[in-house]
Amino acid sequence: MTSTRLERLYTALAQAGLDAVAINPGPTLTYLTGLKFHLMERPVVLLVTEGQDPVLILPELELQKVGLCPYKLNAFAYGENPIEWDAVFRRAVTSLGLDGRKIGVEPRQLRLLEFRHVRAGAPEADFPDASQALASLRLSKDESEIQAMRRAVQVAQHALEATIPMMKIGVTEKEIAAELNVQLLRHGSESELPFPPIVSSGPNSANPHASPSDRNLQRGDLLVVDWGAAVDGYISDLTRTFGVGEIEAEFRRIADIVLAANAAGRAAGRPGVPCANVDEAARRVIEQAGYGAYFTHRTGHGIGMEDHEEPYMRGDNMQMLYPGMAYTVEPGIYLPGRGGVRIEDNIVVTKDGVESLSDLPRELRMIG
Amino acid sequence: MTSTRLERLYTALAQAGLDAVAINPGPTLTYLTGLKFHLMERPVVLLVTEGQDPVLILPELELQKVGLCPYKLNAFAYGENPIEWDAVFRRAVTSLGLDGRKIGVEPRQLRLLEFRHVRAGAPEADFPDASQALASLRLSKDESEIQAMRRAVQVAQHALEATIPMMKIGVTEKEIAAELNVQLLRHGSESELPFPPIVSSGPNSANPHASPSDRNLQRGDLLVVDWGAAVDGYISDLTRTFGVGEIEAEFRRIADIVLAANAAGRAAGRPGVPCANVDEAARRVIEQAGYGAYFTHRTGHGIGMEDHEEPYMRGDNMQMLYPGMAYTVEPGIYLPGRGGVRIEDNIVVTKDGVESLSDLPRELRMIG
Repeated sequence: MTSTRLERLYTALAQAGLDAVAINPGPTLTYLTGLKFHLMERPVVLLVTEGQDPVLILPELELQKVGLCPYKLNAFAYGENPIEWDAVFRRAVTSLGLDGRKIGVEPRQLRLLEFRHVRAGAPEADFPDASQALASLRLSKDESEIQAMRRAVQVAQHALEATIPMMKIGVTEKEIAAELNVQLLRHGSESELPFPPIVSSGPNSANPHASPSDRNLQRGDLLVVDWGAAVDGYISDLTRTFGVGEIEAEFRRIADIVLAANAAGRAAGRPGVPCANVDEAARRVIEQAGYGAYFTHRTGHGIGMEDHEEPYMRGDNMQMLYPGMAYTVEPGIYLPGRGGVRIEDNIVVTKDGVESLSDLPRELRMIG
Repeated sequence: MTSTRLERLYTALAQAGLDAVAINPGPTLTYLTGLKFHLMERPVVLLVTEGQDPVLILPELELQKVGLCPYKLNAFAYGENPIEWDAVFRRAVTSLGLDGRKIGVEPRQLRLLEFRHVRAGAPEADFPDASQALASLRLSKDESEIQAMRRAVQVAQHALEATIPMMKIGVTEKEIAAELNVQLLRHGSESELPFPPIVSSGPNSANPHASPSDRNLQRGDLLVVDWGAAVDGYISDLTRTFGVGEIEAEFRRIADIVLAANAAGRAAGRPGVPCANVDEAARRVIEQAGYGAYFTHRTGHGIGMEDHEEPYMRGDNMQMLYPGMAYTVEPGIYLPGRGGVRIEDNIVVTKDGVESLSDLPRELRMIG
C-alpha cells in the first residue's frame, strides 16, 4: 500500500520540479510510511528522493518503529545529547547527496527545529514549498481510507444519539460537550479527537466557531452541535441543529432553508464538476430565500486525515472533483444575536456521483 | 499577572543579548498574553521588544481575542487572501524597527510558515534560538500553576483507579486505553489530553514509546500504563507497571530495581543540586543491579503547560534545581522482546526539598 504511495510521491516530485522532500511528523509522514511520531523536542525527519531508499532520522529510542514501515527505510538514529544531532543529520542528508538540490518542505508543518538540522546537512540546498504537491497525494482516498472515514462517521453518529437524552433545558453547553466527548470515546473514537465539539445554544449558535460555554439550554433556543470522531487516523466532521422546547417561526423557516441547501450541495457533486459548483448549489438556495447575507462561510472543506484539507468547497475553486475525494457540505444561516442553523454531512465522490457517509436525520430535531 | 511576566521577559531578553522575540501559538504565547490560538493554516505571531507595545499579527476573524490580553497589544490583522499576508507582516515588523536586529525564536515551536513571513519583514535580522531564555520564564511555577498540576495529578490517579477493574486477561491494550481516556474525561480532564496514554503489554512493554495495539493481555505479561490529564492548561504525566497473572522471576526483579531507582531519583532533588544528580541517582541503582544497558532514556523531563519542557533530568544537565521547578522521575528497564517496567512520578521542588504530587502505589500491582 504505502510503497504505491511512494511511487506516486516520486511522480508528484518530478511534476513539481523537486529533487526530494523533507517531512516531519504529521499526516504526510504517516500517509507515506504508516508510522506515527509525536511532534516533540527530538526532531524526526523523513527524506525521500527517487532512486534511493528513503531515509528516516530519529531518536534511538524510536528505532523499533522503523521495522513497521512496509518498505525499506534507511535509519539514522541519534542519542540523547542534542550536540550530536547536527552530525547525524549531516550524515543522513549527505548519504542522499541532497546538498545544492531542491528539497521540498511543508511550511505549515515543518518547524525551525527540523529545518535547521536538515539545512546543516545541505547548506546550499533550496527549500521550496511542496505543500500542494504533497496535499495532492492525499486528495483521492482509497477504499481502506474511505472505510476508516465511514467508521468515523458511524462512531460520531452513535455518540450523538447516546448524548441526546441528556440534552435538556437547564443543561449547559459545556456539560453537553463533556458528555459527547465521553460518548465519542465509548463508541470507539481515538482519544485524539479531530477537534473539540462545538455546542452552541441561543445567541451563541449564531457564531459558527463558538466554544462551549456555561450557558444553560433555554426554551426557544436553537442548538448547534458540530462534532467528529477519529478512527484509524481518519476523521468525521458532522453538524446537526436542534430546537429547544418551542421555537419561533423564523427559526423553523431557516432550518428548512438550510436543509434544502444541504441537499442541493450534496446533490451537486460528481466527477468532472468543479468544487465551486457545490458551493454555488448550496448558496443559491439560501440566497433565493433571502438569507444570503447570513451564510458567512464557504460550503465545505476536504476531510480525511485532517479536519481541514484539500479540496475546499469555495465559489472560486475550479478544482475538478474526481472519485475518492472526500469533503464536507455544511451550509448555515446565522442570525446575529438570535440563533443559527448548520447541517453538515461527509461526502465521498464515487465513480458516477457522490455518497454521503453520514445519514443521521437532518431535520431540526426538537428536544427539551 | 501577565504584565509581570512581560517584565520578566524583558529581563530575560536583555540577559540573552536579544532585541526581540517572535512567538507563534503555543505555551509561551499563552503564558505571556493569556491568549490561546490554534496552530492552523493562518499564521499568528507575537512580537515583543522592550519600550514598545507588543505587536500581535493575526487573522481578522480572531481580532476579538486581542481585548482579552491584560495589557495593550498593537494588532495587525490580515484578510483571507494569503497573497496579502507578507505585506501585513512587513508593516508589523517595520513598526518595531526590527530589521537587522536579533529576533529570538523557538525552533521547536515556530514553523517555517510564520518564520518566513517574519523574515519577509526583517530580511537582515538574525533569528537566534531563544528557547532557553523563554523556557527560563516558565521554569519556576507559581502557586496557581502548582495547584493546577496538583489537580491534573489527582484526576489522572482517580482515572487509573477507575480503569483497573477492567484490566483483565483477554482485554486488549486499545480497550484499556479507551476506557482510561473515558475515565480521564469523567474525572475532570480537559478533552485535549496532554498525550494519548501508552498501554503496552508483553513484548510491547519493552518499547518505551509503544502505541496501544490490539494485543490481548496474557498471563505472564508486564503491562506499562503511561498516562496524564490536563487541568486549566497544566498537565500530569504518570506511569505505573502491572503484572498479569503470574510473572517470571526476572520481571519481579526488574520491577524491584526500578522501584528503588524511582525512589532514589525522587530523593535526589532539592534546591541547589544539578538536574544531573537526579538522573545519576536513579541510573546508579539500575547500573549497580546490572541492567544499565536496558535503561535507554533520560530519567525525566520538566512538566507544566507542556508534557516535555525544561528542565531535563539528564546526566549532562548541570542546570541547578530551584523552588517551583517541576519534573518527572521515570526510570525504566526494558528487556527487548520480553517486557519492560517504568515508574513515573511528578515532582515539584520546594524551599528545602521536593514534593511528589503523585502518590499512587508504585509497587508492581498484580492484575488478571
